[in-house]
Amino acid sequence: MKEITREGVSYMTIRRLPQYMPLLRAALDAGDHCVSSTKISDFFGLDPVLVRKDLASIGITGQARLGFPVRELIGGIERFLGWDNLSEAFVIGAGNLGRALAGYGGFGQHGLKIVALFDTDPEKVGKVIAGKRVTDMTKFASLVERLRVPIAILTVPPEAAQDAADAAIAAGIKAIWNFTPTKLTLPDAIIVEQVDLAASLAVLSSRLVSATRTPRQYEEQPVNDM
Amino acid sequence: MKEITREGVSYMTIRRLPQYMPLLRAALDAGDHCVSSTKISDFFGLDPVLVRKDLASIGITGQARLGFPVRELIGGIERFLGWDNLSEAFVIGAGNLGRALAGYGGFGQHGLKIVALFDTDPEKVGKVIAGKRVTDMTKFASLVERLRVPIAILTVPPEAAQDAADAAIAAGIKAIWNFTPTKLTLPDAIIVEQVDLAASLAVLSSRLVSATRTPRQYEEQPVNDM
Repeated sequence: MKEITREGVSYMTIRRLPQYMPLLRAALDAGDHCVSSTKISDFFGLDPVLVRKDLASIGITGQARLGFPVRELIGGIERFLGWDNLSEAFVIGAGNLGRALAGYGGFGQHGLKIVALFDTDPEKVGKVIAGKRVTDMTKFASLVERLRVPIAILTVPPEAAQDAADAAIAAGIKAIWNFTPTKLTLPDAIIVEQVDLAASLAVLSSRLVSATRTPRQYEEQPVNDM
Repeated sequence: MKEITREGVSYMTIRRLPQYMPLLRAALDAGDHCVSSTKISDFFGLDPVLVRKDLASIGITGQARLGFPVRELIGGIERFLGWDNLSEAFVIGAGNLGRALAGYGGFGQHGLKIVALFDTDPEKVGKVIAGKRVTDMTKFASLVERLRVPIAILTVPPEAAQDAADAAIAAGIKAIWNFTPTKLTLPDAIIVEQVDLAASLAVLSSRLVSATRTPRQYEEQPVNDM
């Protein structure tokens, strides 16, 4: 897929921006008008040059001795990430993961609102999860069109992922947050971000198996050697 | 952090292994004794050479014309990923995300069992989430030692992440599944895998903002042009 970034801002900068927000909000609450890039970089263990570059890339520049204006920074990041304007999302797949994500209350502060879940299983359809109704997948296209929902969160079984993504795009979905391990083949204009929990857990587990079967690693590097 | 892989198997191979399992289990259920690497590669849109390399790397080799033995493959991957032996985990941070992960029923089939949640907030301590009790963080170290729990799942606020990780490691935790955006500084022997949902969502949202503010992209690439 073609890398679409906004106004040439790098993928890594975009990934770091949400991280700055709790610190900026705390500074605002404490009544600070300005914050230095050094304070931010020290807090996160980042290079101050990198922090200044990140902040400059969204159009906010600091002033010598004063630092960066906190309120403008928060507003700038929120606008850049679209947090000033909640994006609505449909979850496709009302299994364990879909239900967990629908029940997670933390996406609101990141500009995402889950509106409903969809499933093909008659036993799941009609149930209500965290105030969101599980709706029959046959109604997906008409609801995307009526409510103009731009995002689909994909939590179907891996073998059903490509078909579900194709159906979502045919219905007018513009972005897919893919929580399945399936690598989707999609048109370039469609925005896709993948979070592969099973893959991440596989790496963790296999390293743990490896570490526990070769205990010498721990003798060389005691776990409490900080 | 030093990359720890098992017997030289690459990070990307390990990440792909869980993906093969549903197909292999379906083949077993259908009574197939063998499966060809081409069948697997076609299904996932992968290079067959890559699939053979992945499977060979866990010590299973195929036979000409017959393919790979399904039962051995499943057993081999399960052993490799430690799925044959449930690893127990404590969740640190009983906020929205911690509760969602504790309530997610899908980790069991990936070899992970969440045993309890921990928090410092007296209002959260004592609550029961999906059969798991939220326990006071002061009891964390003694419970890690008594139950020999190797994994901590970190879902605390970003500014509390490093301290929580340090406490976990001092208590004897060997692996941290880090769901905070904080880049942790830890001893080399500690296994860390990070899942940064906020960062992934930030990339998705900023691309969506970008796409909706430059509608020309969609005229050039109609969303239903499959």
